[in-house]
Amino acid sequence: MKIKYELLKNDNNARYGILHTNHGNFETPMFMPVGTLATVKTMTPEQVKECGSAVILSNTYHLWLRPGEDIINKAGGLHKFMNYDGPILTDSGGFQVFSLARTKDITEEGVKFKSHIDGSSLFLTPELSIQIQNKLDSDIAMSFDECIPYPADYGYAKASTERTIRWAKRGIEAFNNENQSLFGIVQGGEYTDLREYSAKETVKLNFDGYSIGGTSVGEDKETMYKMIDDAIKFLPENKPRYLMGVGEPIDIIEGVIRGIDMFDCVLPTRIARHGNAFTRHGKINIKNSKYKEEFTPIEEKCDCYTCQHYTKAYIRHLIICGESLGGTLLSIHNIRFLIKLTEDLREAIKNDCLLEFKEQFINNYLKK
Amino acid sequence: MKIKYELLKNDNNARYGILHTNHGNFETPMFMPVGTLATVKTMTPEQVKECGSAVILSNTYHLWLRPGEDIINKAGGLHKFMNYDGPILTDSGGFQVFSLARTKDITEEGVKFKSHIDGSSLFLTPELSIQIQNKLDSDIAMSFDECIPYPADYGYAKASTERTIRWAKRGIEAFNNENQSLFGIVQGGEYTDLREYSAKETVKLNFDGYSIGGTSVGEDKETMYKMIDDAIKFLPENKPRYLMGVGEPIDIIEGVIRGIDMFDCVLPTRIARHGNAFTRHGKINIKNSKYKEEFTPIEEKCDCYTCQHYTKAYIRHLIICGESLGGTLLSIHNIRFLIKLTEDLREAIKNDCLLEFKEQFINNYLKK
Repeated sequence: MKIKYELLKNDNNARYGILHTNHGNFETPMFMPVGTLATVKTMTPEQVKECGSAVILSNTYHLWLRPGEDIINKAGGLHKFMNYDGPILTDSGGFQVFSLARTKDITEEGVKFKSHIDGSSLFLTPELSIQIQNKLDSDIAMSFDECIPYPADYGYAKASTERTIRWAKRGIEAFNNENQSLFGIVQGGEYTDLREYSAKETVKLNFDGYSIGGTSVGEDKETMYKMIDDAIKFLPENKPRYLMGVGEPIDIIEGVIRGIDMFDCVLPTRIARHGNAFTRHGKINIKNSKYKEEFTPIEEKCDCYTCQHYTKAYIRHLIICGESLGGTLLSIHNIRFLIKLTEDLREAIKNDCLLEFKEQFINNYLKK
Repeated sequence: MKIKYELLKNDNNARYGILHTNHGNFETPMFMPVGTLATVKTMTPEQVKECGSAVILSNTYHLWLRPGEDIINKAGGLHKFMNYDGPILTDSGGFQVFSLARTKDITEEGVKFKSHIDGSSLFLTPELSIQIQNKLDSDIAMSFDECIPYPADYGYAKASTERTIRWAKRGIEAFNNENQSLFGIVQGGEYTDLREYSAKETVKLNFDGYSIGGTSVGEDKETMYKMIDDAIKFLPENKPRYLMGVGEPIDIIEGVIRGIDMFDCVLPTRIARHGNAFTRHGKINIKNSKYKEEFTPIEEKCDCYTCQHYTKAYIRHLIICGESLGGTLLSIHNIRFLIKLTEDLREAIKNDCLLEFKEQFINNYLKK
């Protein structure tokens, strides 16, 4: 069965809905934690679920290299392999080609680049990306795209955007997994007309959902929001919309206001391992000596496992000593923070007070 | 309240009993996982408890350096600091002086050595070790001793053993925590007469329990077992006996046969982080390529969380990718393995079949 999106309520462009999947039904907007290598770093699946997570994301490129899609397929698919019974989305590898490969050779056929692990030559095509994802058997697969750098000159962006559409068609041709859904990716860089072109052409291909790609690649926030605006108005109401790689709280709010339903980002777990925690009053670094004797939770009113049981002084001690439990505890808090934010955003949409919520949140968040 | 040991049944020298503590009552023989820096590495306290653990051990030397005993004291003691509501034993720091300090200057007053973290000069005395432990507020504190290297010449061993007795007396004088128990440590190196001397003199000081120290310092197994034999016959029946730093399954069995009630070791968690797992058929290294497509648990009949939910192929993938969940899953399995072993040993004592159990276990364990 394919996923199905049910729109329950709008607040202007913002949407409150339900995503029906083969692994449960979950409310949107949602934040999806990232489990790059079939594990949300430092956490058990139970800990991930206790944060209120629904869909998690895993990376096709990384799983292709290690352990290889055939092993995961033989294990019975990614869910069984990693013991996660909630829905899983796999990306296409396009972003990793962009972010990890130092040199790459992009042709019509696909992308030649070198493995970030051992430098061996790799060749990823739209067909191969889909075949790998079919074998991983995630709930949602992503179309293979080129993530355009920012800034990019118009000529390059146009050629790349057109090629991504051709790649999308080839991916659909290659697709073969009736229990898996496939999302298209809107590219187009920072150019309004290319975003419109990409959105319209991608929608013509009738994907199960649409994502806006090419964000979080170095552009300023206003440009990112414009990229969303330029694309989202051409996306159908009855399909979910996913903003890739975005996890800053304020960006999530701005995305939701514009009509985004799904977000993913490594941010909450990555900053956790370096001792950083989200709070309603901005990010803090727990290594700061002022927390040495602070025997209070990261946030008094937070309902996460970490805040229910541990103090800043203890977590600081763990992080300073390089104890991995410190990263676990902060990851739990940070993921819960972003998921709680999406819960609050859903409430705000239901109560038609999204802009008030935004103002209040940002006032708190930016006022240290 | 002090801990109390209740002997319920003997099978020759082996003992089945109950240890009553301020944080619950637990059966012995028991294996105590080690939480060096107020965390059993890579695990939450709940995960530690799900392994069936009772007492856990934490290291005075390490906590003295980071975060410092005053911070833990202000947090309300070690239990509150680390969110572990079961009993905690702290060692004295003597073993870390032996194992971590490259140079040390041992005088009657105490030991001068350099911090393993920043090389700064440290001076640990019997009084200071006890004062730190009083502040940590563990359930069981250990007397400060010198851990004699192996081999050691008789003259040195004798002088050191006598000094450790004098240090034990000074520790008792300094001791000031009515909710904490204090264990004496029998030293004496590999010398039968010194073990007898040390045991008898230590017992005269009327500790709440007794440990046999100076083992696991490079001696062969027969020597270790002789060290136990030479000491344990002089220890009182009504107090618990603790063999320090021993966690090899066969050594635990041999210790229990000789009348030991408590064991601790970093082994299960340390080898876990390097990809090693205990099984009934000996240790395995999960990184071995033969496990690449083994979609079965580490041990089919193991009741641990890891074996209930994860395959060797998945854990191998995690360890090879350096994902800390791999260490967590193997630590859970290994700790559960040793605790299950002590459960089996208790059953064997109750059923008067300890030697049969030993034979069967060793036959399996050494036959790959």
